[in-house]
Amino acid sequence: MTAAPDAAPDNRVSESLLRTLGGRAYVDPAVFDAECERIFEQMWFCAVHVSDLPSPGSFRTVQVGRESILLTRSRRGELRGFYNVCRHRGAQLCTEDAGQARRSFQCPYHAWTYDFDGKLIAAPNLTSMPDVGREEYGLRTVHVKEWLGYVWVSLADEPESFEHTVEQEILDRLGAMSKLEAYDVSELAIGKRISYDVAANWKLIIENFMECYHCATIHPELTEVLPEFADGLAAQFFVDHGAEFGDEIQGFTVDGSVGLDTLPGIGQDRDRKYYAITIKPQVFVNLVPDHVIVHRMFPLAADRTRVEVDWLYLPSVVESGADLTASVELFHRVNEQDFEACERCQPAMASRSYAAGGVLVPSEHHIALFHDWVTSRLA
Amino acid sequence: MTAAPDAAPDNRVSESLLRTLGGRAYVDPAVFDAECERIFEQMWFCAVHVSDLPSPGSFRTVQVGRESILLTRSRRGELRGFYNVCRHRGAQLCTEDAGQARRSFQCPYHAWTYDFDGKLIAAPNLTSMPDVGREEYGLRTVHVKEWLGYVWVSLADEPESFEHTVEQEILDRLGAMSKLEAYDVSELAIGKRISYDVAANWKLIIENFMECYHCATIHPELTEVLPEFADGLAAQFFVDHGAEFGDEIQGFTVDGSVGLDTLPGIGQDRDRKYYAITIKPQVFVNLVPDHVIVHRMFPLAADRTRVEVDWLYLPSVVESGADLTASVELFHRVNEQDFEACERCQPAMASRSYAAGGVLVPSEHHIALFHDWVTSRLA
Amino acid sequence: MTAAPDAAPDNRVSESLLRTLGGRAYVDPAVFDAECERIFEQMWFCAVHVSDLPSPGSFRTVQVGRESILLTRSRRGELRGFYNVCRHRGAQLCTEDAGQARRSFQCPYHAWTYDFDGKLIAAPNLTSMPDVGREEYGLRTVHVKEWLGYVWVSLADEPESFEHTVEQEILDRLGAMSKLEAYDVSELAIGKRISYDVAANWKLIIENFMECYHCATIHPELTEVLPEFADGLAAQFFVDHGAEFGDEIQGFTVDGSVGLDTLPGIGQDRDRKYYAITIKPQVFVNLVPDHVIVHRMFPLAADRTRVEVDWLYLPSVVESGADLTASVELFHRVNEQDFEACERCQPAMASRSYAAGGVLVPSEHHIALFHDWVTSRLA
Repeated sequence: MTAAPDAAPDNRVSESLLRTLGGRAYVDPAVFDAECERIFEQMWFCAVHVSDLPSPGSFRTVQVGRESILLTRSRRGELRGFYNVCRHRGAQLCTEDAGQARRSFQCPYHAWTYDFDGKLIAAPNLTSMPDVGREEYGLRTVHVKEWLGYVWVSLADEPESFEHTVEQEILDRLGAMSKLEAYDVSELAIGKRISYDVAANWKLIIENFMECYHCATIHPELTEVLPEFADGLAAQFFVDHGAEFGDEIQGFTVDGSVGLDTLPGIGQDRDRKYYAITIKPQVFVNLVPDHVIVHRMFPLAADRTRVEVDWLYLPSVVESGADLTASVELFHRVNEQDFEACERCQPAMASRSYAAGGVLVPSEHHIALFHDWVTSRLA
Repeated sequence: MTAAPDAAPDNRVSESLLRTLGGRAYVDPAVFDAECERIFEQMWFCAVHVSDLPSPGSFRTVQVGRESILLTRSRRGELRGFYNVCRHRGAQLCTEDAGQARRSFQCPYHAWTYDFDGKLIAAPNLTSMPDVGREEYGLRTVHVKEWLGYVWVSLADEPESFEHTVEQEILDRLGAMSKLEAYDVSELAIGKRISYDVAANWKLIIENFMECYHCATIHPELTEVLPEFADGLAAQFFVDHGAEFGDEIQGFTVDGSVGLDTLPGIGQDRDRKYYAITIKPQVFVNLVPDHVIVHRMFPLAADRTRVEVDWLYLPSVVESGADLTASVELFHRVNEQDFEACERCQPAMASRSYAAGGVLVPSEHHIALFHDWVTSRLA
Repeated sequence: MTAAPDAAPDNRVSESLLRTLGGRAYVDPAVFDAECERIFEQMWFCAVHVSDLPSPGSFRTVQVGRESILLTRSRRGELRGFYNVCRHRGAQLCTEDAGQARRSFQCPYHAWTYDFDGKLIAAPNLTSMPDVGREEYGLRTVHVKEWLGYVWVSLADEPESFEHTVEQEILDRLGAMSKLEAYDVSELAIGKRISYDVAANWKLIIENFMECYHCATIHPELTEVLPEFADGLAAQFFVDHGAEFGDEIQGFTVDGSVGLDTLPGIGQDRDRKYYAITIKPQVFVNLVPDHVIVHRMFPLAADRTRVEVDWLYLPSVVESGADLTASVELFHRVNEQDFEACERCQPAMASRSYAAGGVLVPSEHHIALFHDWVTSRLA
């Protein structure tokens, strides 16, 4: 399939390099469907922040793989997740992104009514159908779990172990859970949320986040704050390695000015350091002394991904109305720079010249582990 | 494929209930193609009103399944239907929805010219091609039939019996053709026409029309006029059953005020009654004492259907310029309420939680007959 | 599959006629993909004018089949063509249609840098990867050739003979290369360029250009200038036949007024003649005494084609700022008339009534040779 007479044989690359996935993996709707089925609709998926669901009947609808999932809280305040589909004739229960139900979820088509635990509590003529079980015809549930202040869902019948998947990613990156616990992420408050609509495959966004070989080229502000990033060091690959702020840098801000109040659990060993963590398949966590940035990806199609990003600070900081502009702006720019790069790659994924993929330089070699992981999930 | 641990096994439902079709039937383009081939491009299809074609050369182009069909009248005023495709190189003869041809249909590409019977009557250099038969290379015809004041077409080589299909639906519903004849529908005039673009599969629209279990929830005006509808009675299922106007109701209007002139054939037994009839695959007829409402569906894609609705009154009523607002508004609201409900179901048809379909309560059980019919047509 | 009872059996037509391709060839995305693979991404494809690339580092990006191709000139001014895809991770090197690179093409993602010959000349940490060959990881090249003042590319590993394909089309049409050489096309300058976005399959556009049976119907201005075109003569089919200007016609202009300076090589035998040439698969050349019109088609999808048209005059004419309006307007109108006709055919290609295709009258019979050629390329 290669067209150019000077091309290397597709199955071999120079010893310094490794192959990426072939381009088809980034454009074929059938691959995306398989990823939805085997990855996003199976694994633990970080859906919303707990503060998005402040009280019983508060709800959010989110896209998890190809499914619309309804998240809410029961009367006792417990998290609940359901398919957003009436059990009767399939109408969507909630078409808004967010809202507050008063006493129940009532389907607006035939008035089948469910309590916040999903149980069928009323329907026209229901009393004349005594064999219709209130639990059996309740909303189909999905598994939910609260962690780091977020609501994680799994659409699997039997979810994978949270400990051996999500938490293991923390261990692999930081070496110990205590390293993360120091940030007490679940106690932080959202200072800013920005949603990005990216015309690129979700894997391009993960690959981009996993390496810093591009940092010198596209991230002038970030490399100013974290000078070692200018060398393209794959910081994530080294257990517990944090990137050190530059000598002149006072905080993790777009201009290196002083940041917000440092999180109380952060000692001197990490009060000038940045840590990035990838939690497959759709979460990035960035830790700095005064805030935490959490990316949740919502893959929508082979060539489209929504990314919702929260900047989390101490509740006292958020409540004080402190100016977060310089703080937020740094990673907002990084996001825009990264997503533009990903969008620039997407069209070429369909080229015959990229059918066998591209190459990974040594500081990107760990991306091959991600590719192996994707390949094995789809096998 | 079900994801929820509390789900019933997909192949069994409680005894009070029946299964609907699985969700794929409402979203898969291949199913829609099969429906076009086996249903819309085979069966009698109600296309336009006779008054849409007032005289020879008047024409309408309509979408029947996946085909553009050209309807017109011959010099002698007879109805004619053709594929809207020139026999020479395939240009569309008419690109407008409606118009008036003067003497013939002339293809604007190479000037092949057809009379209103479809015969090839002229073409550049045609005399030098004496073996090109004027009939053989005439427009490809489709079968047409006038009934109830509408032009029905069939794209089948040998159309199914009109009597055993279309007319049988009337018999099954009303018990005798005379019951319909009393309304003398073919003599009525169009008082109002409204076209709706619905983002839902055509079968959702039929299912909605077939049951009244939703009436109490979404049709406040209609249940005010027809109190028994508040009970969800499937009026259509009972032979010749008509729903009675409420005691305070003076006419089939949005506010129950008096309607227009009663049709002359309507006796006291039906002068306060409403009858709904479904004529598969794409027509609804609503009979009330002073007017008749006819819905024609034009399925455009698995998730899109155009519905054109005519309100028919006595010609004298239409000519008088009488105010039809309250009369039209009642079913216009019903349409908007119904189509919104259908559009709310469409997205969930693709959910894995609806792969095996939903359920039909007892007052909806007759919808299963429609599902069986669809299934058998596609078999 | 034909629905009309009066239709001729699909596999036979009257003796005067020949069959066209069946409608599916014009609408099926799989056919379009096959055409890209076997035709546009294989054959010599006329991409840009040499003046679009005035100097080293000038570049254009063009769509050739499904590929984005980057065209430029080396330091020594030689034409170069590359896949517009970075060899590292697949980012598009150039996203603009046209521009001027200063010293090299640098990928904006990780700064891999290529010289104008496509050689990899720099990349972060490249020195630590000594086994990464600068040629081996250079841009993937495509074959380029300059002819008639245009840059032709071939994406084949081993391009077909230019002489036996492109040049042979000239010989077949004009009988001798000298007939074309008289126009000295490569020395002409672009006086006007218009780009058309046509909602039709590329083959409909070729078929339209190959015959004049439609001229009397849709080209009033052209048949005024070239009276024999009113008879529908397939001028292209007769070796070296040129259509003669009408007696009153002074030049190839929209109103028959005098044209621009006659090209110096044109003798009295052709100073009032028009010649049209089709160079498969995507070029039309129109020769008149004072200018040459070149169409390049860029097929984008089964139902969409971009056509870029250049009006070429003597450089002295273009430099003088002479009014080209009447000269350009004639063929601009022809283009608009033709493309509207093609767009009118496109929707009917999907009709079951056109499944076996349409027919070719005697003056169109040579189009069957084109159909045979397409069929054999895809076989």
